[in-house]
Amino acid sequence: MMRTRAAVALEAGKPLEIMEVNLEGPKAGEVLVEIKATGICHTDEFTLSGADPEGLFPSILGHEGAGVVLEVGEGVTTLKPGDHVIPLYTPECRECHSCLSGKTNLCTAIRGTQGQGLMPDGTSRFSMLDGTPIYHYMGCSTFANHTVMPEIALAKVRDDAPFDKICYIGCGVTTGIGAVINTAGVEIGSSAAVFGLGGIGLNVIQGLRMAGADKIIGVDLNNSKAEMARKFGMTDFVNPAELPEGQSVTEAIIELTKTEKDQFGGVDYSFDATGNVQVMRDALECSHRGWGVSVIIGVAPAGAEISTRPFQLVTGRVWKGTAFGGAKGRTDVPKFVDWYMDGKIEIDPMITHKLSLDEINKGFDLMHEGKSIRAVVEY
Amino acid sequence: MMRTRAAVALEAGKPLEIMEVNLEGPKAGEVLVEIKATGICHTDEFTLSGADPEGLFPSILGHEGAGVVLEVGEGVTTLKPGDHVIPLYTPECRECHSCLSGKTNLCTAIRGTQGQGLMPDGTSRFSMLDGTPIYHYMGCSTFANHTVMPEIALAKVRDDAPFDKICYIGCGVTTGIGAVINTAGVEIGSSAAVFGLGGIGLNVIQGLRMAGADKIIGVDLNNSKAEMARKFGMTDFVNPAELPEGQSVTEAIIELTKTEKDQFGGVDYSFDATGNVQVMRDALECSHRGWGVSVIIGVAPAGAEISTRPFQLVTGRVWKGTAFGGAKGRTDVPKFVDWYMDGKIEIDPMITHKLSLDEINKGFDLMHEGKSIRAVVEY
Ligand SMILES: NC(=O)c1ccc[n+]([C@@H]2O[C@H](COP(=O)([O-])OP(=O)(O)OC[C@H]3O[C@@H](n4cnc5c(N)ncnc54)[C@H](O)[C@@H]3O)[C@@H](O)[C@H]2O)c1
Ligand SMILES: NC(=O)c1ccc[n+]([C@@H]2O[C@H](COP(=O)([O-])OP(=O)(O)OC[C@H]3O[C@@H](n4cnc5c(N)ncnc54)[C@H](O)[C@@H]3O)[C@@H](O)[C@H]2O)c1
Ligand SMILES: [Zn+2]
Ligand SMILES: [Zn+2]
Ligand SMILES: [Zn+2]
Ligand SMILES: [Zn+2]
Repeated sequence: MMRTRAAVALEAGKPLEIMEVNLEGPKAGEVLVEIKATGICHTDEFTLSGADPEGLFPSILGHEGAGVVLEVGEGVTTLKPGDHVIPLYTPECRECHSCLSGKTNLCTAIRGTQGQGLMPDGTSRFSMLDGTPIYHYMGCSTFANHTVMPEIALAKVRDDAPFDKICYIGCGVTTGIGAVINTAGVEIGSSAAVFGLGGIGLNVIQGLRMAGADKIIGVDLNNSKAEMARKFGMTDFVNPAELPEGQSVTEAIIELTKTEKDQFGGVDYSFDATGNVQVMRDALECSHRGWGVSVIIGVAPAGAEISTRPFQLVTGRVWKGTAFGGAKGRTDVPKFVDWYMDGKIEIDPMITHKLSLDEINKGFDLMHEGKSIRAVVEY
Repeated sequence: MMRTRAAVALEAGKPLEIMEVNLEGPKAGEVLVEIKATGICHTDEFTLSGADPEGLFPSILGHEGAGVVLEVGEGVTTLKPGDHVIPLYTPECRECHSCLSGKTNLCTAIRGTQGQGLMPDGTSRFSMLDGTPIYHYMGCSTFANHTVMPEIALAKVRDDAPFDKICYIGCGVTTGIGAVINTAGVEIGSSAAVFGLGGIGLNVIQGLRMAGADKIIGVDLNNSKAEMARKFGMTDFVNPAELPEGQSVTEAIIELTKTEKDQFGGVDYSFDATGNVQVMRDALECSHRGWGVSVIIGVAPAGAEISTRPFQLVTGRVWKGTAFGGAKGRTDVPKFVDWYMDGKIEIDPMITHKLSLDEINKGFDLMHEGKSIRAVVEY
């Protein structure tokens, strides 16, 4: 049993409280990790706000981290103290029915307990100083300086990569780029529309540039998001609030993609990175008749539903979604870190704010104000 | 200008009227075909009933035919008098943006005029004896003993295949089998659920058997459909109206597919062949987390929408649709005819009723009563 400092979510809708907490050592198959840096993702905000019907309190949020292994539990063979790691909210056990299917990254080995905010043995390692248990979050809890995680939920990465940048690969970077290359399978020369130019959408855009897309249309209600998006490869920008009277965002995108050869228009691929169900519908319906593929990345409010006329699908559009960009964490995350170190993908300009743990609530404020792409907390 | 006999849809909701009509000869790029046999498909019924918002009257319905070329218009090079042909409501021009994409069968060369019930030059070849124009239907109008069609909308097939069987390849057979092999891409050993065991659903089932599926679950409200479905390969039957109190059809299918290794359950592939939007949702939601693919085949009532929680897609399910089973008519239809002649696919047991043109309204009655799979009119 040790003590560590953490930002604890005591109640929905309240700021996080910075405090000392108890942390039990790693049990069999578990690993103690010192978190060096963590990003603040929209999904943390979703849970903290109370909008997440599966949110548990008190809990230690955070799922976009990077750190160093301090101690391994019994039977752990693939990690040792000193290894640099990125926590995985989507583990990769390589043994369950899902992993063995080869068709999905959604490992189901520890899904039940992870959803309950617990380690695989059904208990929590975190507690208040008075002994009250604190829930884990998405199996990660990177808003604590130290955390315990299952071995199968840690990607071992190279030692020379900076924690304060690669933490972002733990969620946003992999989700956005993975949605393009794993889920959509975009080909060279494609056209695409990206709805929402936040921390996820920008990574979709850089994924599209990597994949060789020709036309990359960004859509956001906030004009200030356009400049950064252009730097990552956006070729056209649409603000749905500033369209000519009577023109819908789908019509605007269809117009932008019509050519002499193609009088129908529509993008080959579209992505929702907003979490808004009406946007998800627009994204589907602006994709091309016959072959358009639309990928949902955003997390919608509880109970919200997507709708469309089935004719949209019968005439060849495909509706998909992605979790963690379809990436198999232990296999793909180290590769993303290599890509960053090789200059193949950019991260630095997206880390717009650096904070200490004590300032973490400011990170949520910046997100609400639409001022940050990623705020990163360094321990 | 010639005369021919046809069953004319004068008004929505009224029986067809058998009468002599005028037929103009083929213009440039067009072909005069003597129809030898035609099936009656649910889609004809949809339009005749008035439920189809794009239905036009008076028109000559029918889109599932087979016949012989009598005369070709100027510039027709791929067909000659005496050739056996199957009319294609989805043409294959091999030159438009859609055909050249290689990604879709939805040729757009003549889409505009076809939707208006006209030949590509914007006029109709059919008229009443008093001169009133009669609309074409789906570019085919096989409920006339003779019809005129564009060259790109005719598949040339072998001479030794019986018209009264291969007419069914013009819609039902190709749609059902094509949904499995072209749209879903089912692999050997898969599990699948087929909603609706009518003329389309049975062909989905035989497509699944061809593709080597292990578990083929059929779903229908009509128990009498189960026997035939078993003959085509169905392994399990679910009647949603006869489930234990409180069990939904998705739950029943998930239970049927759970195994020792897989505690989640769900089918690898599902198909809607009912046209009911609630069934489309059930089909999606009974497909497997992580990789389930659900294909909409049915045509929904005007304005009806499909809905689901986006989480269903984010956790790996894929929602698709299919038109004419994704088949490229001139390329794939002759292959389906070969498969029938080689005994690779069955058609004969599905042709449950043979009628003369004068009896065609009986074919619609049999469909309403759920008594026929396919009624075929022989001229
Ligand atoms: N599927 C996954 O694995 C996964 C992983 C991480 C995050 N997410 C989700 O992705 C979504 C985006 O996350 P983020 O971190 O980029 O959020 P963010 O707040 O940084 O960005 C969202 C952007 O969308 C824009 N926007 C909002 N409503 C819009 C509308 N109606 N039309 C156009 N633009 C609109 C905002 O202005 C903002 O720029 C969230 O729902 C988040 O929960 C999903
Ligand atoms: N996408 C395409 O290219 C294409 C081509 C042809 C037909 N279709 C459509 O496919 C659908 C099926 O056509 P068909 O000729 O097989 O019709 P059909 O009437 O022969 O068969 C429909 C079957 O569905 C069953 N059914 C109805 N409601 C049900 C429910 N709620 N749950 C379970 N079963 C139910 C009926 O009992 C019947 O057996 C129609 O909507 C038709 O318009 C689409
Ligand atoms: Zn995240
Ligand atoms: Zn696994
Ligand atoms: Zn049909
Ligand atoms: Zn074409």
